[in-house]
Amino acid sequence: MPKVTQEYRDARRDHIVSAAKRCFLRNGFQATTMQDLLAESQLSSGAFYLYFASKDDVILAIAQENVATVTSVIHELAINPREQGLGGALAAVVETVRNRDQQDELAALTVLVWAEALRIPHLRESIAEAVVSMRSDLTAVVADHQQAGSLPDTVSAAALAGLLISIVPGTILQLAVFGDSAVEGIPDAARAVWPT
Amino acid sequence: MPKVTQEYRDARRDHIVSAAKRCFLRNGFQATTMQDLLAESQLSSGAFYLYFASKDDVILAIAQENVATVTSVIHELAINPREQGLGGALAAVVETVRNRDQQDELAALTVLVWAEALRIPHLRESIAEAVVSMRSDLTAVVADHQQAGSLPDTVSAAALAGLLISIVPGTILQLAVFGDSAVEGIPDAARAVWPT
Repeated sequence: MPKVTQEYRDARRDHIVSAAKRCFLRNGFQATTMQDLLAESQLSSGAFYLYFASKDDVILAIAQENVATVTSVIHELAINPREQGLGGALAAVVETVRNRDQQDELAALTVLVWAEALRIPHLRESIAEAVVSMRSDLTAVVADHQQAGSLPDTVSAAALAGLLISIVPGTILQLAVFGDSAVEGIPDAARAVWPT
Repeated sequence: MPKVTQEYRDARRDHIVSAAKRCFLRNGFQATTMQDLLAESQLSSGAFYLYFASKDDVILAIAQENVATVTSVIHELAINPREQGLGGALAAVVETVRNRDQQDELAALTVLVWAEALRIPHLRESIAEAVVSMRSDLTAVVADHQQAGSLPDTVSAAALAGLLISIVPGTILQLAVFGDSAVEGIPDAARAVWPT
């Protein structure tokens, strides 16, 4: 396929996803119909179905895009775990989430995705897969900090990773429901609690 | 009003809330109709409207009940902040959430409430009020631990409270989407990280 065609396809797909985000943020997932998605994206159903098989498929794409934002930051940190300290690493994840939220309402969309994941098994499985990889990267970071003495070794690295990863969805929830001012102190707090 | 009547009223109200929880967990909030709520609670609309003015009103009752579970544990901890150490206090909150989840699917219902709170302003305000009181209790606990030297004082108590409180919704999200095994290590991890 010539390059320009792939670019066109990508742009079309992004256009649909952006239109769908606006619909979902306005009315929620369940109350948004295929008709709403077609009207907002100004596409025929034929054009739409070239990119997505269903409304659930668009939700899945949004979920994967948002989860990828967080997994990729944590993956980067795992490559060089002690460079900025554990608190600095957590602060970097929180700052990425805040930036993406300002650009793209990541937090509200993520909360909507969580609610749908309770109802749509393949959405839950797709998120679970990303979270497993995220926890495994974070467990490696934690184990390294346990060896360096900056985290206690009286509990497993996996349990500590479970505690630390909670801060990410906890931040997303507070951002979505209460806005940025509810979370702006979190990066500095993380750096103060885990300076090394 | 004679006591037996108030007991009858409370039991009726609980009956409606339980029926509504089953509907919401099965189909989500938006796809649940008033007809579904009446069928599940086996009440006439006249009987139902004695207790709740609308579907949104039932959601609000569920949200307030669930939020009260967490705020009351944190409030208890704030009365005697150093008794069980900061980690022990956080562990107690997480254990309460896990227990209530096993009894009553607190986690999944809470995630549904969050998603609706984005859409229903008075639901968001009601949650915000509870969270403000929770953060203020936790800020007092944190300030006490800063004085005792078990938390850094290079950052404000409010910022630290914002970090620590994130662990609660983060745990709830993981419980709802991935089940209890995803969070079972969190209490021990909290006790290990903040032993005093």
